[in-house]
Amino acid sequence: MFEFIPPGTRFFPLPSPFPMKRGGALHGARIAYETWGELSPARDNAILILTGLSPDAHAASGPANPEPGWWEPMLGPGKPIDTARWFVICVNSLGSCKGSTGPASPNPATGEPYRLDFPELSVEDGADAAAHVVRGLGIERLACVIGNSMGGMTALAFLLRHPGLARHHINVSGAARALPFSIAIRSLQREAIRLDPNWNHGRYDERRYPESGMRMARKLGVITYRSALEWDGRFGRVRLDSDRRPDDDPFGLEFEVESYLEGHARRFVRRFDPNCYLYLSRSMDWFDLGEYCAGRCGNGEADVRAGLATIPVEKALAIGVHTDILFPLQQQEEIAEGLRAGGADARFLPLDSPQGHDAFLVDIGRFGPAVRGFLDSL
Amino acid sequence: MFEFIPPGTRFFPLPSPFPMKRGGALHGARIAYETWGELSPARDNAILILTGLSPDAHAASGPANPEPGWWEPMLGPGKPIDTARWFVICVNSLGSCKGSTGPASPNPATGEPYRLDFPELSVEDGADAAAHVVRGLGIERLACVIGNSMGGMTALAFLLRHPGLARHHINVSGAARALPFSIAIRSLQREAIRLDPNWNHGRYDERRYPESGMRMARKLGVITYRSALEWDGRFGRVRLDSDRRPDDDPFGLEFEVESYLEGHARRFVRRFDPNCYLYLSRSMDWFDLGEYCAGRCGNGEADVRAGLATIPVEKALAIGVHTDILFPLQQQEEIAEGLRAGGADARFLPLDSPQGHDAFLVDIGRFGPAVRGFLDSL
Repeated sequence: MFEFIPPGTRFFPLPSPFPMKRGGALHGARIAYETWGELSPARDNAILILTGLSPDAHAASGPANPEPGWWEPMLGPGKPIDTARWFVICVNSLGSCKGSTGPASPNPATGEPYRLDFPELSVEDGADAAAHVVRGLGIERLACVIGNSMGGMTALAFLLRHPGLARHHINVSGAARALPFSIAIRSLQREAIRLDPNWNHGRYDERRYPESGMRMARKLGVITYRSALEWDGRFGRVRLDSDRRPDDDPFGLEFEVESYLEGHARRFVRRFDPNCYLYLSRSMDWFDLGEYCAGRCGNGEADVRAGLATIPVEKALAIGVHTDILFPLQQQEEIAEGLRAGGADARFLPLDSPQGHDAFLVDIGRFGPAVRGFLDSL
Repeated sequence: MFEFIPPGTRFFPLPSPFPMKRGGALHGARIAYETWGELSPARDNAILILTGLSPDAHAASGPANPEPGWWEPMLGPGKPIDTARWFVICVNSLGSCKGSTGPASPNPATGEPYRLDFPELSVEDGADAAAHVVRGLGIERLACVIGNSMGGMTALAFLLRHPGLARHHINVSGAARALPFSIAIRSLQREAIRLDPNWNHGRYDERRYPESGMRMARKLGVITYRSALEWDGRFGRVRLDSDRRPDDDPFGLEFEVESYLEGHARRFVRRFDPNCYLYLSRSMDWFDLGEYCAGRCGNGEADVRAGLATIPVEKALAIGVHTDILFPLQQQEEIAEGLRAGGADARFLPLDSPQGHDAFLVDIGRFGPAVRGFLDSL
């Protein structure tokens, strides 16, 4: 229903039924993906990219779709993820509305969109679905799995639940578990959507659409994706020109930063299905690698390290930035330390980027060399 | 209408008309206040406390009201603000709903609450109103003005607009101007209230009350008043007992941190007037001491320091904490540096408190000695 599928997207059918971690199963589900570069005869040059909450599979331009992708400066011939060397796959997350099966997709049992009848979604389900795509493309062993943000969680679940399916790993601004500050933010975003009378327990349509709730959720998202430091320099206290301000409303848009949030929200609210947003958001709260502590369980922190230590990976890089308030730097440090405890050659690389959580999308000057350096070393 | 006035509150009538900085005037307005201790015969031992957005004038228990106040551990005989030595005045902000005139108070022109007919409110108006109370109590020179959070802004405006009315100053987690991250947060809080259909352009009542909007605004407030660090230790990933969870709702309260936010919101939404919240919130966005740069104006940062340098104060202390994301530590450092540039003996004291912006309310172990030390030195 509210599905937004870029041209050139390809689809891989999941096994039917596809069992879900928290119960239930999907029938006739599919995963949207796109690829770049050529798989080598030895099938040993494949890289999988797992995305954050909102992106589609179109990470970069290519023959199938010449439009720039969401990681355009990072991915292509000669770029940090060099498609002259690597065969790159990017999958759209299970539960999303960008081509993979999710709450906005038709439920084969009824022919109507699943809406809230979609089974509870876990990060692990997304990892399992991605593993099917990889194997389905004839790849027994990825050279590397790269996960950004939520995709960093998915990548860890992928490595843990599919041992041997990837040799190396780059975790970009990811986490091995959700912590209370980010749970609180996401909980509030979901509440904003659910409070919108037009959400109507998931039964909205084009005309009665939870636009206000989505706008609130997106604005709160953008606030936590960037950083105060960046905004001090970028917006300061600059005001809108008077002709861009609503007349006589002391509570209307007045500062540049308010207009920036408004613009971001406007571009998003009708481009992402609200129910899919709720499901993906909650799946992050639930994610906790501490569940896999394998008998060595003590408390939250020890458990997550024990869980990480069960992950078989040869070489790994965990990157983050000082100004990230949503997936703070300590979480990437935790990933590197936990993987190292499991025997991996794992490095933690903090970057001095002012752009907060979103830095990996915009600060290619810092992230590009980090990713390139790691891939060159393989 | 939605006014919440603690017992024992006293009132001081403002001059009528009372002109407002951004235009318009109040007629028959009043300021609610409370006092502790005794004014010395020389009238030289008075301290004024200016509050954050939501508190009333009841900072601590006393003969007039034995209930604990919002700064109970800080204020009283033998406490850091020692009422055996000091005569302490706390005023409720102009524009609030805790006894001082604000949008919830009756408009003498109509007999009905002002609602959105209240004139635009500035931090400076609150400072001017407080100055009338001080002079009205027969005090020509305060020993010290202490301002917390929004009150830190009010205190700077007070010192600047009423030269000589206070000798010394403690700025607690305050700021000399609003920066875009906090403007963005407050803008979103106001949007949540204004989007609630029950807000109805300020014309709500007991039955049709913008409860959802106020709940969202308060939860977002609490998220920014505390810190991720504190919550990691306090809540971690602890879940509610199953009997405290709503049945079968994957988006209902599940984590302790969600329940904590819900509890905070529930205690607030019917105890603070939504229109007053909007007015006070916007007044903080507008605050910028850079307006007073007195000809030495260049850019935002230089201007605010020039503005601070015009403030006549003998000795000052600016305190803040590392984990404050709403009034970040650099803002207290800026205050101390600016006051020093104006000739004050001003000290910046960063505290290592995990509790974020609210630390001054709860981390008395760190804030108490800082405040006591400064007052003892006077």
